[in-house]
Amino acid sequence: MYRRTFLAGALAAPGFLRAASERRYTWAEVEKMLSRGDVKGKLGRDDLPTPALLLDLDAFEHNVNKMAAHAKSHNRALRPHAKTHKCPEVAKALIRAGAVGACTAKLNEAEVFADHDIRGLLITTAVVGPYKIERAVRLAKKNRDTIFSVDNSQNVRDLNAAAAEAKLTLNLAIDLFITGRTGVLPGTPALNLAQLIESLPNVTLAGIQAYAGQASHVTGFEARRRKSEEVMAAAVDTRRVIERAGISCPLLTGGSTGTYNIDTQIEGITELQPGSFVFMDIDYRKIGGQNGEVYDDFKNALTVLTTVVSKPTDDLAIVDGGFKAFATDRSFGPEPKNGNGIVYAWGGDEHGRVNVAKASRGVNLGDRIEFLVPHCDPNVNLYDRMYCLRGEQVEAVWQIAARGMSQ
Amino acid sequence: MYRRTFLAGALAAPGFLRAASERRYTWAEVEKMLSRGDVKGKLGRDDLPTPALLLDLDAFEHNVNKMAAHAKSHNRALRPHAKTHKCPEVAKALIRAGAVGACTAKLNEAEVFADHDIRGLLITTAVVGPYKIERAVRLAKKNRDTIFSVDNSQNVRDLNAAAAEAKLTLNLAIDLFITGRTGVLPGTPALNLAQLIESLPNVTLAGIQAYAGQASHVTGFEARRRKSEEVMAAAVDTRRVIERAGISCPLLTGGSTGTYNIDTQIEGITELQPGSFVFMDIDYRKIGGQNGEVYDDFKNALTVLTTVVSKPTDDLAIVDGGFKAFATDRSFGPEPKNGNGIVYAWGGDEHGRVNVAKASRGVNLGDRIEFLVPHCDPNVNLYDRMYCLRGEQVEAVWQIAARGMSQ
Repeated sequence: MYRRTFLAGALAAPGFLRAASERRYTWAEVEKMLSRGDVKGKLGRDDLPTPALLLDLDAFEHNVNKMAAHAKSHNRALRPHAKTHKCPEVAKALIRAGAVGACTAKLNEAEVFADHDIRGLLITTAVVGPYKIERAVRLAKKNRDTIFSVDNSQNVRDLNAAAAEAKLTLNLAIDLFITGRTGVLPGTPALNLAQLIESLPNVTLAGIQAYAGQASHVTGFEARRRKSEEVMAAAVDTRRVIERAGISCPLLTGGSTGTYNIDTQIEGITELQPGSFVFMDIDYRKIGGQNGEVYDDFKNALTVLTTVVSKPTDDLAIVDGGFKAFATDRSFGPEPKNGNGIVYAWGGDEHGRVNVAKASRGVNLGDRIEFLVPHCDPNVNLYDRMYCLRGEQVEAVWQIAARGMSQ
Repeated sequence: MYRRTFLAGALAAPGFLRAASERRYTWAEVEKMLSRGDVKGKLGRDDLPTPALLLDLDAFEHNVNKMAAHAKSHNRALRPHAKTHKCPEVAKALIRAGAVGACTAKLNEAEVFADHDIRGLLITTAVVGPYKIERAVRLAKKNRDTIFSVDNSQNVRDLNAAAAEAKLTLNLAIDLFITGRTGVLPGTPALNLAQLIESLPNVTLAGIQAYAGQASHVTGFEARRRKSEEVMAAAVDTRRVIERAGISCPLLTGGSTGTYNIDTQIEGITELQPGSFVFMDIDYRKIGGQNGEVYDDFKNALTVLTTVVSKPTDDLAIVDGGFKAFATDRSFGPEPKNGNGIVYAWGGDEHGRVNVAKASRGVNLGDRIEFLVPHCDPNVNLYDRMYCLRGEQVEAVWQIAARGMSQ
C-alpha cells in the first residue's frame, strides 16, 4: 500500500520512492527487532528511527586493534576510559583485544560495568561522602581488583575506616594535580598521601592516576609532545619519590587519545587510559597528527544519522537533530560524513539547518544525512543505544548502559 | 566539619564520624526509596547522589499557576511545550492547572506522554517517512485528539492514505515558516496546503502551528514585542486567508516563555505553547523583563546539585558536574543559585572548576553547591529523574520518561 501511495506521489517527491520501496517491515516488527537486538541480516540503515547514533564496526575494530597493538608493542598496559562509550559491549571488545579493564569517571558508571562483569575497573574521580564510600566498599566486595582514586587525607581515612568495617582492603590510586583539575600536588604532598595510605591497614597503594587533560588537545604533534612530556614528568618523578621512600607504586596510569604515541615514549608510565580513539570525533581530528594537519591515526567510527523533516526553501533542509542529538560543548557543530557540499548549522534543541545550496546531489524531504559528531563523549551520553553497522546492514544494537551515570 | 578537620589537623577521622552521624540510612536503603519514589518525609537534599537535577516545588507551582492564570484571563488556551520537561508528572500538573494538553517536538516524545494518559497532544515537527507515519496512525488510534504538524503536500497525502487504511481521520496543523526553521511559507503556499487538506477525506485542518523562535529570545521587552508582533502577523494573516477561503481554521498556536504576555495581546492567536516557564534558566533571565534587566516573571525552579570532590588549592574547588551535567549550548555556564561569591568554569565532561577565592564562606571537600542551569531544555534531557524538593525535604522523584526521545 505504501509503495502504491508513494509511486503515486513520486513526481511530487522522488525522495519518498526509495523509502517506500526499501520498507520491508511494519514499524511494529522493526520495534520488536530493535528492542530484542534481533537485527542481524534483517535491518538496514534506512530502517532506523532518527536521530540515531551509529557505530561503523569496521572502523571501530580497526581503532580497537590499533591501540591494543600499540600498547602491547610498547609493553604498556591498556585500560581505556569508559566515560567515552559508557557501553559494556565496547569495554568487552577492548578487553578481548588485550585491555586490562576499564577506567570510569564516576562511581555509578563503575557499578554499571561491574554489573556487566567487567573487571579491572579504575575510578578516576574520588568517591567523597559516606554514601559513596559505602557504595565503593560494596563495589570492592564484588570486584576486589577495583581501584579508587584519592587526593585527600581525610578521604583516605574515611575509606580505610569503611574498608575496616567491611573487613577488606581497598586499592587506591593517588590522583595527581597535573591537569588543573582534580588531584593532590605532585612531589611531597603526594608522598605524604602515599605514606598515610601505607600506614593504614585497610587501604593499599596501587599507584598513581595522572590524566594530563591539558596535553591531550594541544594542536600540533610537536607542541603536544612537549606539553605531555612536561606535565607527565611530574608524575614520573612523584612515582620515583614514593618508591625511593620504600613504598611500592606499581601503577602510573595516564595518557589520552591525543598523546598515546607520546606517553609510550616516556619511561615510568606503565599504563595508557585513552578513551576517544574507539570512536573519534571532529574535535580530535583538528589537533593534528604526526604526519599532517588532520589527526587520523584512528578512523571516524561514530556518526549520527538524521532525516530531512522539512524543506522550506530550495537551499534549506531541516534535519531532526539539534542540541539534543549532538554534543554542543565545542565551538563547532556537526559535519556531514560524506561531504556532499552541505553545511550544518544549529537549529535549536530539536533541529539542524542544513544549507544545501552547494549540495552535490538533490536533497529531498525524507532523505537521510549522516554527520560526524563534534565531541564523542558527551554525544554518546545523549543516547540509550548505538546501532552497529557493517556497511549498510545493522549487525547489532548495543545498549549505552551507563548513559547519564555521572554520579 | 571537614574544615574543622583541616584546621585541627590530623585528629581522628571526624569527617567520617560526622558524615556517619548525619546519615540516617544506609545507601542500600536510600537506593530503594529513590527507585520506589518512597521519599516523602524521609529524604533530604543531602541524601541525594550528585550531580542531581532538583525541582523546587514552591517555585514550580508558582510558575504553573501564573502562566495558567495569564492564559485564562486572556481567553487563550494553554498547551505548554513538553520538550522542555519530558516529564509526565509536569504535564499532569499543567493540565490540572488548566492546560488543554501538551506540545511535543517529536513523535516518540508524544508516544511516551500518551502512554502516561496525557491527552491533547500536538506534535510540532512533521512526521516524515513510512515508519513514522505508521506510528502516527497508531498514536491517533489511541488518542484521537492528537494533532500532527505538516508543511509538505506529499506528506499530507501520505498521512491521508495511511489514515484511510486505518479508517480514521488525522488532525493536522499547518506548520508555518516564520522562524527560519520548519514550515510552509505563509500566505498562498499555506492556503494551498489547507485546500489540499480540505480536499482529502481522512485528514482535517485543526489550525496553524506558528512557533516564533526568533522572537522568544530577543533581549529587551519592547524589541521583543516588535519582533513577535512582526512575525506573528504573518500567522494571523494566513489564518484569515484560509478562513476567507471558506476553510475552518480554529487553532492558531504559538508563543513562548519570552513572548507569553506579548502574544496574548495579538488578536487571532488562540493558544500559547510556552515551555521554559515551568523551570526557567539563566538564558531566559538574560532577555530582560517588562520592568527591568532581569526577566523574572517566573521563578528559578530548576537547579543541579553538585558535590566538591576535590580541593587541590585554597582557591579551587572541583565539583562533580561538567558537560554531562549541564547544558553546553549557550555561551555561558552554570551560576551558583545562592551567589556566595563563587564562580563556575567548565572542567570537562565530568567536572566543574569553581573559583572560591571570593567565596562568602569556606568551601570544603564534600560540600554541596547548587547551580542554576544555562538552558533548561537540553539540561533536563541529560537526566533520568528529577528530585522534587519542598524546602530541604525531598517530596517526590519524577521520572523524565521522555528523556532522549528525539525521534
